[in-house]
Amino acid sequence: MAIEVISENASHGGVQGVYKHASAATGTDMTFSVFVPSHEPGAKLPVVWYLSGLTCTSANVTEKGEFRAACAELGLIFVAPDTSPRGDGVSDDADGGYDFGLGAGFYVDATQEPFAKNYRMWSYITDELPAFVAQHFPADRTRQSIMGHSMGGHGALTIALRNADVYRAVSAFSPIVAPSQVPWGEKALSGYLGGDRATWRLHDAVALIYDGARFPDILVDQGEADQFLAVQLKPSLLAEACNEAGIALTLRLQPGYDHSYYFISTFMADHLRWHAERLY
Amino acid sequence: MAIEVISENASHGGVQGVYKHASAATGTDMTFSVFVPSHEPGAKLPVVWYLSGLTCTSANVTEKGEFRAACAELGLIFVAPDTSPRGDGVSDDADGGYDFGLGAGFYVDATQEPFAKNYRMWSYITDELPAFVAQHFPADRTRQSIMGHSMGGHGALTIALRNADVYRAVSAFSPIVAPSQVPWGEKALSGYLGGDRATWRLHDAVALIYDGARFPDILVDQGEADQFLAVQLKPSLLAEACNEAGIALTLRLQPGYDHSYYFISTFMADHLRWHAERLY
Repeated sequence: MAIEVISENASHGGVQGVYKHASAATGTDMTFSVFVPSHEPGAKLPVVWYLSGLTCTSANVTEKGEFRAACAELGLIFVAPDTSPRGDGVSDDADGGYDFGLGAGFYVDATQEPFAKNYRMWSYITDELPAFVAQHFPADRTRQSIMGHSMGGHGALTIALRNADVYRAVSAFSPIVAPSQVPWGEKALSGYLGGDRATWRLHDAVALIYDGARFPDILVDQGEADQFLAVQLKPSLLAEACNEAGIALTLRLQPGYDHSYYFISTFMADHLRWHAERLY
Repeated sequence: MAIEVISENASHGGVQGVYKHASAATGTDMTFSVFVPSHEPGAKLPVVWYLSGLTCTSANVTEKGEFRAACAELGLIFVAPDTSPRGDGVSDDADGGYDFGLGAGFYVDATQEPFAKNYRMWSYITDELPAFVAQHFPADRTRQSIMGHSMGGHGALTIALRNADVYRAVSAFSPIVAPSQVPWGEKALSGYLGGDRATWRLHDAVALIYDGARFPDILVDQGEADQFLAVQLKPSLLAEACNEAGIALTLRLQPGYDHSYYFISTFMADHLRWHAERLY
């Protein structure tokens, strides 16, 4: 499959690229970014997947995430996919909301029309894009990990919990831990998956844990001044589930921090060290 | 004078703010950003001034500059002003160019109409804004330094060379070192200062050095893949002038790097360490 180079810039000793390809999963062109640090010729490096939050594209973390210095130091490839399919003919929220449709794919394979045709972000992130990245970059598919922010934290947690044999580490910034129990998640999961809440449990980290999914350990940073903390994020639900399941959750509540990239960038290097310790 | 808080976000242990105030120098509202790291109550911290390049506002470096981790570690306040006056009634390039008028103030006090009324960035940066910042933030005005990128590198060099008693350090990323000798500079200086090239010499780092201005040492990073290197930037002219004048110039040509914030962010921490060594 062909890769289109949108841009490549030298940065922190490596190359920060933005690329486009035709996705079979979504039936659309998809844009993503990849940082490849300096490395020995022929070497394959572990890959950290970063899933972004509502309204974001790959550009937000690429420009504001402050991950490159740590990735260069630790020898990590950093891949940031888009958050939904886009383009002519891709259905959007009929009400124009920011929290459903374009920019809000919620990392599921939709079963409901008119979304089932394009909104197949689960397959795209877990299957198609990893294979595509391994074709075009020096990525070691046996050493992958995943992280994300908000909706992307939800994506990272659910993908890791259901694929604990594939991802060696998982972490999240201010994740939606229990979408079945909060407004953002109820809107998205009902819209993409329909009204049968049993089908939602495969896309709800807390429900997955109660249903038996396991991961050795999880790192979560959550700003205490995050405007979405009480209504949409509810990390205490994850703490309770991990406690019952015996999952080692490191949940750090960060006083004064909000939901923005000013928060994410502050703790990004900590997260990447967490990942590197489990990838090397 | 009143300060309007546009935003304040916790980041890297400190606060990244964006502010607005009514400038007497420019006769307009001016927006700027300030990062204040965590510090002891009552402490005054040294201030690093960062001047941005053509088309930028304070937002570019604030979002993409990756300066906060180093400023937090080193105890530096980081101030990023806008690059020109803006607002209703502020004259712009009559031809719509990006390299003159709005976003392209070139850090001079214009003498030519219709620009003389608002384009007074020299006075704003060297006089009004430092006093205003010292009123509202824990800034030690006896410990200031200055840096910048491209047009802002030009601003930093000329301001430091003419105020070597005020700024304890100066550095630049891909600066316009000799505006009198390159197209960007010839357009800007003729437009703001008129056709008498003698008046330009006060706003040309290379000319200032040949005319006797001195600074102890200067750090410059320049990407070798910078598309503007040969025609607009010409760092060799600065190297020749510093060599003749006995100024210790550290000019680092960085293979593969371009003119973007991917380049700037790579070497930002190096520059801040250079500044901290001269501020503490």
